[in-house]
Amino acid sequence: MDAEIISVGNELVLGQITNTNVAYLAAKLTQLDLTATYQTTVDDDRIRLERVINHALTRSQLVFVCGGLGPTTDDITMPTVAATMGVSLQTDQRHWKWIQEKFNQRQISMEPENIRQAKYLVGGEPLANPVGLALGCWYETGGKVIVVLPGPPAEFKAMVDKSLLPKLQDYYHTEKQIISRTLNFLGRPESQLMDEIATVTKNEKAVVITSYVQPTAIQVRLTVRDLPFEEANQRIDRVQAAILQVEEPYFFGVGDNLTLAEVVVNLLRARHLKLTAAESLTGGLFQSTVCSVPGASNVFDGGFVTYAASAKEKLLDIPAMLISKHGVVSSETAAAMGEGCREKFHADIGIGFTGVAGPDSLEGQPAGTVWIGLAIKGRPTVTRQLHLAAYIGRQAIRTLSVQYGLQMIYRELKN
Amino acid sequence: MDAEIISVGNELVLGQITNTNVAYLAAKLTQLDLTATYQTTVDDDRIRLERVINHALTRSQLVFVCGGLGPTTDDITMPTVAATMGVSLQTDQRHWKWIQEKFNQRQISMEPENIRQAKYLVGGEPLANPVGLALGCWYETGGKVIVVLPGPPAEFKAMVDKSLLPKLQDYYHTEKQIISRTLNFLGRPESQLMDEIATVTKNEKAVVITSYVQPTAIQVRLTVRDLPFEEANQRIDRVQAAILQVEEPYFFGVGDNLTLAEVVVNLLRARHLKLTAAESLTGGLFQSTVCSVPGASNVFDGGFVTYAASAKEKLLDIPAMLISKHGVVSSETAAAMGEGCREKFHADIGIGFTGVAGPDSLEGQPAGTVWIGLAIKGRPTVTRQLHLAAYIGRQAIRTLSVQYGLQMIYRELKN
Repeated sequence: MDAEIISVGNELVLGQITNTNVAYLAAKLTQLDLTATYQTTVDDDRIRLERVINHALTRSQLVFVCGGLGPTTDDITMPTVAATMGVSLQTDQRHWKWIQEKFNQRQISMEPENIRQAKYLVGGEPLANPVGLALGCWYETGGKVIVVLPGPPAEFKAMVDKSLLPKLQDYYHTEKQIISRTLNFLGRPESQLMDEIATVTKNEKAVVITSYVQPTAIQVRLTVRDLPFEEANQRIDRVQAAILQVEEPYFFGVGDNLTLAEVVVNLLRARHLKLTAAESLTGGLFQSTVCSVPGASNVFDGGFVTYAASAKEKLLDIPAMLISKHGVVSSETAAAMGEGCREKFHADIGIGFTGVAGPDSLEGQPAGTVWIGLAIKGRPTVTRQLHLAAYIGRQAIRTLSVQYGLQMIYRELKN
Repeated sequence: MDAEIISVGNELVLGQITNTNVAYLAAKLTQLDLTATYQTTVDDDRIRLERVINHALTRSQLVFVCGGLGPTTDDITMPTVAATMGVSLQTDQRHWKWIQEKFNQRQISMEPENIRQAKYLVGGEPLANPVGLALGCWYETGGKVIVVLPGPPAEFKAMVDKSLLPKLQDYYHTEKQIISRTLNFLGRPESQLMDEIATVTKNEKAVVITSYVQPTAIQVRLTVRDLPFEEANQRIDRVQAAILQVEEPYFFGVGDNLTLAEVVVNLLRARHLKLTAAESLTGGLFQSTVCSVPGASNVFDGGFVTYAASAKEKLLDIPAMLISKHGVVSSETAAAMGEGCREKFHADIGIGFTGVAGPDSLEGQPAGTVWIGLAIKGRPTVTRQLHLAAYIGRQAIRTLSVQYGLQMIYRELKN
């Protein structure tokens, strides 16, 4: 069923703030098998808002109007929705009394305008605001539903979770839930990955496959609608197995918010292994990424940022000869960095990053040339060269280098 | 003039991602005195997208269609815009050759579908993509303009800045230019900053003052419309001077995209000073932030990540007694870290970070407790304690710690 989310506010139209509410509500609707097919933003203008609401009612069965429920006369949403529906507003006396009490308790003098925040549409139903003053409203008209919600994200989310979702579940009897699973990949261009996936899954039509490029992963989402829970999961299992038969080397786990750093930290933790690093072009970003995972202290004691060649020599005891012979950006230097930091920390795993973040080239090598050296206790040291595209820029080159370093560790440990 | 931004993508409709592009573009349009009065989001569906474009053309003179320019058949934007306009697509041969070269250089085999990313509307004009493969498009029709832009934020922003804005300025002859200047502050709550600013600037009505909270700064924008260039700048100068008389300690420079790291690196570079660091809770993020500035190698040779107490002792020669007596999260440990790394690197400036990133507390101190120690050659070591709110979360605590560390360096060097 098509839903439409209308966001109201000058600050949105002027680009002063990013609208986080709409993704929050859309994700909740998706879980209920309702889809926010249309999302519209408009400024605090009665005439334009009325037009936008009327247009929404021509194409959507469920319309949300979000924002503009403050106490000032700029806040036009509730009266505009009422006018568009051809009804007037009424005051929720119990809520109005509660607002007055709140102000008394906080010893703040109240403005008479605050009564606006206790009003809702005649014939509608007030929606409670667990963390703010303004009421929301649920209003049914000719088989369609209009819902009014507040703008501040904390109030918005609280009203959605506590007041709106139970009401929606009740009203739409949404039992046919959507089942979905997200697979995370790194190291394969999106178009190639999706082409190969399309080939191996072409017989399973019930599973819809979509991809989304994140800065540090390609996410592939498998979705099944309108099937019983168990059958849906079996079909997703089958598709996942078919995909991994081909794409296993690039796969690092299941989950919407999964990061490779989290996967690696948890794997090291399970195996009681300690990790350290020596970073040149990444300048501390690898270690910072590892430390972004709660519990990183179990697998990471510390490491080095060796940006200058002199630091590589001094901190890691890499012979100056080795660097001058092979170059800073070389397999040999990367290997020596990985081995050097591992020895200094008596760690199980040492990883070294050296390369050209750009914008300028270095030693005749273009920006995007990166060498990673991985030294694991009891195994031969391995190195890998990356040829990242210079045009993605300095930050993306550093971020991707870190991710490919994590992937090297992950693959080595899985073998 | 009314503009409309249409965002296309299933991932937006399903609430999988937050749309940051629309605020970015809307803010840029505001600066040109164009207003993104309407903003619409729709899924990757040809029929619905066509309807949305046609509806936009009934109410807006300038329409942007953003996202869906990838190489796969899900990416329907360019062909749908063409069909809506009743024209076909053509290949930009030079760009198509360039794409092929890029793939060759990176030694990746290319899919024939990539040619889709070199196509644009017949009768239109391609817009260059400085950081990605897909072309954008500028198309004029009956006094209105349609612009097609890519979805990935890095590509979107680069195309907006480099290809779109010059074209818009040229096309709309926006001579009654808005003159604006952005001041960057750190370390003052937004409401307090803006209240104080309102008090000292209340006599200058021609300068509109707006604020915008970034993760690493509060930006205050001073804007003047419809005045000659010179007078506008004089008024902005006066307002800036009035603001800095009160807020100077929190100010770090002028510019939309200015970062404190850039300010500090440039300052160190001008004074021929070298910086190093020893990081605990920030885990390499400070050094990584410094290295994000091109030219950082002039002021930074490397440093330490000393996450565990043992690493602080071993790498920085901090006596175990000092840590056990005062605690890891203490002024004394932070000072010893700053001094220790400075000595090891024979640098001019050493900075140490220790604290509780959370989610758990440490040594009885709550998440958000941070000590920073700053050791500058020839000066007494200074330390500073931060009490960041635990609810902002682990990443924000680490990010803000880095920024406050940069601010300490900036202030010390300015004195």
